[in-house]
Amino acid sequence: MTSAASSDDRRYVLSLGCPDATGIVARISTFLADVGGSIVEAGYHADPDSGWFFTRQAVRASSIPLGLDELRDRFSAVAAELGPETEWTLQDTGETKRVVLLVSKEGHCLHDILGRVAAGELNAEICAVVGNHPDLERVTRRHGIDFHYVSFPKDPEQRGPAFEQVRKLVDVHDPHAVVLARFMQILPPELCEHWAGRAINIHHSFLPSFIGARPYHQAFARGVKLIGATCHYVTPELDAGPIIEQDVVRVGHADTVGDMVRLGRDVEKLVLARGLRWHLEDRVLVHGSKTVVFS
Amino acid sequence: MTSAASSDDRRYVLSLGCPDATGIVARISTFLADVGGSIVEAGYHADPDSGWFFTRQAVRASSIPLGLDELRDRFSAVAAELGPETEWTLQDTGETKRVVLLVSKEGHCLHDILGRVAAGELNAEICAVVGNHPDLERVTRRHGIDFHYVSFPKDPEQRGPAFEQVRKLVDVHDPHAVVLARFMQILPPELCEHWAGRAINIHHSFLPSFIGARPYHQAFARGVKLIGATCHYVTPELDAGPIIEQDVVRVGHADTVGDMVRLGRDVEKLVLARGLRWHLEDRVLVHGSKTVVFS
Amino acid sequence: MTSAASSDDRRYVLSLGCPDATGIVARISTFLADVGGSIVEAGYHADPDSGWFFTRQAVRASSIPLGLDELRDRFSAVAAELGPETEWTLQDTGETKRVVLLVSKEGHCLHDILGRVAAGELNAEICAVVGNHPDLERVTRRHGIDFHYVSFPKDPEQRGPAFEQVRKLVDVHDPHAVVLARFMQILPPELCEHWAGRAINIHHSFLPSFIGARPYHQAFARGVKLIGATCHYVTPELDAGPIIEQDVVRVGHADTVGDMVRLGRDVEKLVLARGLRWHLEDRVLVHGSKTVVFS
Amino acid sequence: MTSAASSDDRRYVLSLGCPDATGIVARISTFLADVGGSIVEAGYHADPDSGWFFTRQAVRASSIPLGLDELRDRFSAVAAELGPETEWTLQDTGETKRVVLLVSKEGHCLHDILGRVAAGELNAEICAVVGNHPDLERVTRRHGIDFHYVSFPKDPEQRGPAFEQVRKLVDVHDPHAVVLARFMQILPPELCEHWAGRAINIHHSFLPSFIGARPYHQAFARGVKLIGATCHYVTPELDAGPIIEQDVVRVGHADTVGDMVRLGRDVEKLVLARGLRWHLEDRVLVHGSKTVVFS
Repeated sequence: MTSAASSDDRRYVLSLGCPDATGIVARISTFLADVGGSIVEAGYHADPDSGWFFTRQAVRASSIPLGLDELRDRFSAVAAELGPETEWTLQDTGETKRVVLLVSKEGHCLHDILGRVAAGELNAEICAVVGNHPDLERVTRRHGIDFHYVSFPKDPEQRGPAFEQVRKLVDVHDPHAVVLARFMQILPPELCEHWAGRAINIHHSFLPSFIGARPYHQAFARGVKLIGATCHYVTPELDAGPIIEQDVVRVGHADTVGDMVRLGRDVEKLVLARGLRWHLEDRVLVHGSKTVVFS
Repeated sequence: MTSAASSDDRRYVLSLGCPDATGIVARISTFLADVGGSIVEAGYHADPDSGWFFTRQAVRASSIPLGLDELRDRFSAVAAELGPETEWTLQDTGETKRVVLLVSKEGHCLHDILGRVAAGELNAEICAVVGNHPDLERVTRRHGIDFHYVSFPKDPEQRGPAFEQVRKLVDVHDPHAVVLARFMQILPPELCEHWAGRAINIHHSFLPSFIGARPYHQAFARGVKLIGATCHYVTPELDAGPIIEQDVVRVGHADTVGDMVRLGRDVEKLVLARGLRWHLEDRVLVHGSKTVVFS
Repeated sequence: MTSAASSDDRRYVLSLGCPDATGIVARISTFLADVGGSIVEAGYHADPDSGWFFTRQAVRASSIPLGLDELRDRFSAVAAELGPETEWTLQDTGETKRVVLLVSKEGHCLHDILGRVAAGELNAEICAVVGNHPDLERVTRRHGIDFHYVSFPKDPEQRGPAFEQVRKLVDVHDPHAVVLARFMQILPPELCEHWAGRAINIHHSFLPSFIGARPYHQAFARGVKLIGATCHYVTPELDAGPIIEQDVVRVGHADTVGDMVRLGRDVEKLVLARGLRWHLEDRVLVHGSKTVVFS
Repeated sequence: MTSAASSDDRRYVLSLGCPDATGIVARISTFLADVGGSIVEAGYHADPDSGWFFTRQAVRASSIPLGLDELRDRFSAVAAELGPETEWTLQDTGETKRVVLLVSKEGHCLHDILGRVAAGELNAEICAVVGNHPDLERVTRRHGIDFHYVSFPKDPEQRGPAFEQVRKLVDVHDPHAVVLARFMQILPPELCEHWAGRAINIHHSFLPSFIGARPYHQAFARGVKLIGATCHYVTPELDAGPIIEQDVVRVGHADTVGDMVRLGRDVEKLVLARGLRWHLEDRVLVHGSKTVVFS
């Protein structure tokens, strides 16, 4: 499932959600076959509760003698047949995805993502890093990436202009993903709406346990035997957005809050890396408050 | 760590909690050495937050030329030196532990425990099974175990006499463990107190997520990517007792509530089996709302 | 993904493997749409190494106004277009699958499967249990299932007639699965061939580690930190058949061989249950020495 | 269990192995109590097979009014009583451990360790990195660490001088650990002996599966459902040294060798980080071909 931009590895990726009905798979796959598309990966899901149908198909780009724009143009006719509620995207893995990271003081998620991009593991360009503390400027610049420090006032009521500044620094890149890599600031509702479906957070607990501040302290106090991390889309309701990925690690009575922080970091990194990867590869389809993940 | 009652496998097990201080390990281990005790397993934990010390030591019974009563008698002098708050037990693994199970309609945990006892995996005798439905009578009797059906009125306010009947059916066995093996009834506070430290519940979620009824439905609605189970001591506050063990299993967007119920059953069985085993082997020490587990 | 035979839950399940080519998905899904088939689950995989294509599709039976025989008849024309090497089955989940179990002395896998069938978790009927020791006769008969004891001579050279007897006891049921539930006997090559694709073994190690006898002893001697179990199809080469499922559990320096046996049992049960379920639901497609599992 | 060098977090750590006998724990703990030692962590293990006893004890350094040398001096009398085969070390966590890394072209383990040291997660100083390729020089120097490139001839018979050069570059630092962080060269037996108990390798398979070259290709060919990594001490027999830690990750039929390499990297990093941490904290005691790990 490795995505890449090199010649024969280039893919056109169709992601689509629409009301379920008989014949959808036939309609889409006939379209792809008619343009010569060689399907490399295909995922389908019909949700009986919502009556919704989801699919993701990856087609060898070299098998289709059309440009992306023309392919989109032709497919829009098929999508129209599937009903007005149909939502779809058609992406070219030859295009590198743009990502902006929001950070605070803790650098482990930043380091991890930078390392994965440098190793070619993520088909992404980190356009900029924005921090509400200057601590991570040096490591960011070492990778040749712009770092913007935005000072946040202590009074939460006074943070509007700071968030406005962050918004501008992000939006100039028109990013596919805005990653809150342990940003530690609650986005105002209008920013959540503005970046809906693109803002990804890593929360350091196994949600819905331990919503809000200091989840490791909460976990320690409750005496749980596993701690976790959750990668989710950001929505106005705190820590309640659609979950993309979660994982856990075992802890015991001898582990202090400090140990949990250390052990949790490894889970946070892995969960965020998986969630971001799937998002950038158009593997995540959101419907209501839940996700379909074709991983 | 296999417990067993056969000759050389017999152990004396000391479990102790007391205020931490220098020299406790020396005091206890010198006592054990003085009576010739050959230590097979030893666990220690000093909790810096509560300032409490915990230990569990398993000694080859054949190495000590004293009966259990005399050993207890002698050790009580040591315990007294460790302060008036010291709590300790000294058990002989040659004694089979008595267990009573409370069940409802779902039989998977009952089956699992009966199978483990039959296979000699748990050093326990199931004295009786009490059900608020008659469904599991047949499978219980097949194993040669008494089953008592207690009818519960629909109105929760009217259940006092039924709980009183359950209490009598349980207490006649003076059990080491009262296991709520998917009992689906909330014990009244006075029963929680009465069986404090002996009543063990299996909750079908990864607590503190999804407290209360229908946790798999809650998990499905939230769209979590892992579901879990929690084995904990029963306390008056619902699903808030000290946690003994937890585990999780991965679920995906294609899994229905029915799939979660099925997948969850395997986790419930494993988590309850581990928790019960550790309890019966005196591996679990409770302090406040948390446990120390020398597994 | 729960299979069941009740009215609207009945499915027709198509499993197919053929040389990969453009348009296969379109061809199959158009066929299904033309007969009105409402697709509930669909899995696809194209293997670039072998150039082979695999699919499994589950269609709501009530959505197709055809009997299974007529549906098979019509689909055979489609299959023919996909090339002479195409292999496919079309199953009706309304038909309960027949299973025969081969056992020895250890009963945990037998108990587990019987419990799952009794709970309606597996769409299967256990037709018979055949043992080379009489130990598990009683538990089998308690479930109302026939048990056949076949005495095996000590000399491996002399076991031909015993295997012949086992073969007859199994074949009379024409089973969909012959499960070696810790059978502890190596099937002769001709039986492996005869039950090819239907004989499923649970090996008590994480293959290819610790092939052959006493894998837990081998694991203990090597000092591994995880032990595992492997469910695989039986082939003439010992423990080398296509792997359906594997899992592991953590062990430590304090665990004896006896502890590993106990901990391993839980993994064996889970891995065999998953593998058998997937096999009976036609989720496992074998190609060469490997499997594709649409779980 | 976080080690650290700051004032009250400083520990004296005793690790000891000796023939098992009654009274060892009493002897050691009485010694520690006599010098005022406040025990923070204690692990014990008696191995019935080898008749060997193992312990690790961490004592608050501030509770003992003795320097490390005097403490060692006094303890050597106790050790002598435990028999001539007794092996022990007494370490001060206030001393930063010296580590040299051997690398080749793949940088993920190097990055990961450098990141953990920078974050203060490992009580270690990376003294130098030695590579048989120059690829990782830049990232190493960015962290202000010396990189030494040693050219290895293609002919394995001619590599003696190169290994001799590596040996000198390593030994000048007298390191506590020599980490083969995907070094991809087989150490000659005399170097294995020379660094015995200090040379740690990360092998990219779940040993003893897939010993030797290209384990992910071997895993792919076999069709396993989990891949893993193993951290072990280096011994002259290839990939057969005492195992410190292992872990696995699930793979499926859709994962290519490239996917396995990518997924495996995360396991390699975690397993090596845990193994190295435990080694540097004197939590790993080797006995014969196995380890006792007080994690």
